[in-house]
Amino acid sequence: MDSLSLSLKIYKNLRRHHFRLLFSLSTSHSKKKQKIFSFEMVGSVGFVTVAGVVAGGESNGKPEPLPEELINPESLLAEEDLPIEEEKPKREIVLGRNVHTTCLEVTEPDADDEVTGEREAYMAGVLARYRKSLAERTKHHLGYPYNLDFDYGALAQLQHFSINNLGDPFIESNYGVHSRQFEVGVLDWFARLWELEKNEYWGYITNCGTEGNLHGILVGREVFPDGILYASRESHYSVFKAARMYRMECIKVDTLMSGEIDCSDFRNKLLQNKEKPAIINVNIGTTVKGAVDDLDLVIKTLEETGFKHDRFYIHCDGALFGLMMPFVKRAPKVTFKKPIGSVSVSGHKFVGCPMPCGVQITRLEHINALSRNVEYLASRDATIMGSRNGHAPIFLWYTLNRKGYRGFQKEVQKCLRNAHYLKDRLQAAGIGAMLNELSSTVVFERPKDDDFVRRWQLACEGNIAHAIVMPNITIGKLDDFVDELILKRSSWFQDGKIRTPCISADIGVDNCACKLHK
Amino acid sequence: MDSLSLSLKIYKNLRRHHFRLLFSLSTSHSKKKQKIFSFEMVGSVGFVTVAGVVAGGESNGKPEPLPEELINPESLLAEEDLPIEEEKPKREIVLGRNVHTTCLEVTEPDADDEVTGEREAYMAGVLARYRKSLAERTKHHLGYPYNLDFDYGALAQLQHFSINNLGDPFIESNYGVHSRQFEVGVLDWFARLWELEKNEYWGYITNCGTEGNLHGILVGREVFPDGILYASRESHYSVFKAARMYRMECIKVDTLMSGEIDCSDFRNKLLQNKEKPAIINVNIGTTVKGAVDDLDLVIKTLEETGFKHDRFYIHCDGALFGLMMPFVKRAPKVTFKKPIGSVSVSGHKFVGCPMPCGVQITRLEHINALSRNVEYLASRDATIMGSRNGHAPIFLWYTLNRKGYRGFQKEVQKCLRNAHYLKDRLQAAGIGAMLNELSSTVVFERPKDDDFVRRWQLACEGNIAHAIVMPNITIGKLDDFVDELILKRSSWFQDGKIRTPCISADIGVDNCACKLHK
Repeated sequence: MDSLSLSLKIYKNLRRHHFRLLFSLSTSHSKKKQKIFSFEMVGSVGFVTVAGVVAGGESNGKPEPLPEELINPESLLAEEDLPIEEEKPKREIVLGRNVHTTCLEVTEPDADDEVTGEREAYMAGVLARYRKSLAERTKHHLGYPYNLDFDYGALAQLQHFSINNLGDPFIESNYGVHSRQFEVGVLDWFARLWELEKNEYWGYITNCGTEGNLHGILVGREVFPDGILYASRESHYSVFKAARMYRMECIKVDTLMSGEIDCSDFRNKLLQNKEKPAIINVNIGTTVKGAVDDLDLVIKTLEETGFKHDRFYIHCDGALFGLMMPFVKRAPKVTFKKPIGSVSVSGHKFVGCPMPCGVQITRLEHINALSRNVEYLASRDATIMGSRNGHAPIFLWYTLNRKGYRGFQKEVQKCLRNAHYLKDRLQAAGIGAMLNELSSTVVFERPKDDDFVRRWQLACEGNIAHAIVMPNITIGKLDDFVDELILKRSSWFQDGKIRTPCISADIGVDNCACKLHK
Repeated sequence: MDSLSLSLKIYKNLRRHHFRLLFSLSTSHSKKKQKIFSFEMVGSVGFVTVAGVVAGGESNGKPEPLPEELINPESLLAEEDLPIEEEKPKREIVLGRNVHTTCLEVTEPDADDEVTGEREAYMAGVLARYRKSLAERTKHHLGYPYNLDFDYGALAQLQHFSINNLGDPFIESNYGVHSRQFEVGVLDWFARLWELEKNEYWGYITNCGTEGNLHGILVGREVFPDGILYASRESHYSVFKAARMYRMECIKVDTLMSGEIDCSDFRNKLLQNKEKPAIINVNIGTTVKGAVDDLDLVIKTLEETGFKHDRFYIHCDGALFGLMMPFVKRAPKVTFKKPIGSVSVSGHKFVGCPMPCGVQITRLEHINALSRNVEYLASRDATIMGSRNGHAPIFLWYTLNRKGYRGFQKEVQKCLRNAHYLKDRLQAAGIGAMLNELSSTVVFERPKDDDFVRRWQLACEGNIAHAIVMPNITIGKLDDFVDELILKRSSWFQDGKIRTPCISADIGVDNCACKLHK
């Protein structure tokens, strides 16, 4: 084995990184600690190999809050030498630094590598360890809305092909290695789900939920070039990113305790800006609390403040719940029979997919308007990305065909049931917790231990954390989680005496379990 | 088998679509024609199965010109009933129509599907046929710059995981199932290639070349909010898409015959707009002609017209040749030692990858400036997409490690040699052809037969077509192509008498093989 290919990169602050790495391991994984030491004793090669696994694992960096938290701009200015960590260190945000020390360097093959097979052996080793860490990480995962339970074994045969749906899904390209027939099959299914006729919709399979939002808001802006974008404070950060990218005026609307848009604030803000058309982002499930904006009330508010249907455009960001809501009987319907312009949903979330993807559906008339009026299309491509992953549509097509409407319905019911179970268990243990109706996102008191947060991959914001109950989250896993939380929680307080924090500002008085509110 | 799940969707104009489909098959694939008829005789089920394969294959729609060709807006207004095709029909562009009739519909599983295995069998059948069509299409492919020769068998084991590098590559997220350690390894390699220090660059693995351009131009705009975007007419359409998305003033610069930017026109346009900073898109290989803009001359022109280094931002769109040029000794260098702001390159092109991806590298100072000055980051995410495909970095890492610098060098040399071979053979056959120095894109007289164009998946624009010689294109394949072209060409002219068209306006007098110029 070539020692260069495995050497740890030397940085000015390597030494501290090094100690830090060991330190964080020693607190959470005592078994691994020994392993590292023994590796160190046999030289640098083994050490770096372990570092690689660790990077794939869990030990680098402090936990990351949810995207809504603004970064501290000062931290971006940080010099080489950051202050020594205090006992409760603030997470350092140093763009372009953290991961370098643990990354898997690309190295030149030796001239004789093909003969000796050393290179192949090295890479096989890296991949095997990486695979093991992925399996471990997949097992302990609660915080992100990804369904990690899928079996696409039948599709492995397609990985050999460079499948690219470049450009428009409905217009064949000369590039023959595409999967439009699957893509349009999937799009038809979603158009049917959201009640838009085949000859009245346009859409495509996107790279992720963000691309759906970028597209929906862009369509809105092209329909109303001087429109103002309205979005609740708890909207996904990509919505505000879009506003800045597209140079649109953007007004943030307040939210209720549940996380839903506050329509009385919305009304006031509309009345202050009656002269300009409105482009509204409606959340079908917010990122943090899984709150579903009341689409009907949003429309009613627009109508009552004098916005006719030709003066507003609604984009529904259905990242996760856009695909769950249709299967819940009592849920308000997302449908193109209402005056909405576009709906986007993620494909890797509820459906589950090896890579991020999403579905974007809009009205064909808007895409036509786009191309006619603003000469938007430099080509016949009305997508945001030019080349598009042709594998994603096949994954989606495969799952939709296998599970069907009824299969999804069952899974949604299971998720909602299990989410209630989690909330009930937390509350029974005296831990403040909230679960919105129609949601499988359980919000609760942020665990005070970063290792615990990292181990269960919880997403945190301020004083709260959340777990999202997806189809791969069983009652057994939830029990393991709650049991461990209860077991460890007392040790996070001085003298082991639990002082339940007040999080009523985040989840409301009724859900808070602090001394005052319980 | 469930006949509903296989039924052809009925459209008003189904009948014509139907006949058209058969017609196009009968002209180009006489063997298949018989097959279809025989299937028809046994009922609709077999017929649709064949239609599915056809859609994965080659028979739907007329060939697509390159993206630069503007769509005919009238065509978007087309009603249900389009005019009957003439002998040389214009390609119909009807958004939201073409592919519906041939798509693979998603259908509900039957209640007993799990018992009978019917559904699994049906899907396995669809996939097997699809796989076959992909293999066929991959074999006959010349027009797009994708290296279709790769073997990622060792990575198939990772398809079971939902790998997502959400957010910034350098800052770990709580979501543990990521591949940042591979991603940063790849980024380091590219930063080294383009000579930017580890602590001075920022970058990420994108979803495609377009995302790289969108990002580079956005960085340029945030550095110079009132800057004017300059790009040659032959720039990729995503550059002009970016200008419209970002509401930037954009000035198109003329090109030379080779396809390179015309710096004397550039100079004039700069002089007319001296009061505003300049953001310049420099093409390291244009889409159609593979022309490489003269980066040094662009910088010189900027300097000579009084633009100091703090008044311009250069983004290099290196989609294909950005990764080939570094391996050509005599090629002008793309390097951050010159005053450039960002470079992007596609990963699925020269490297080869099952799905589109790309690499974007920029200066860390710009990303910092971005976050400090314009509060661009709603999160610590300076990427365009939020969730990002975690498999792509592993594919790239794998190939870079296996082939290394020397491996790429060999492949680049082979491509350039084979491109010369193709150009020479075409010219020897009396067919006008052009090959830019440093390029493997051979531009030639557009074949007059759409079936031929489709079969070889050539990209066409106006009177010219091109073939791009990638590592998977052997001399044998080029010989097959030229032999077939020569054989069929005479039949495309009346009386079989070849009248070589004049394409000197596209490829220059020296390269044209028409009666006047040869």
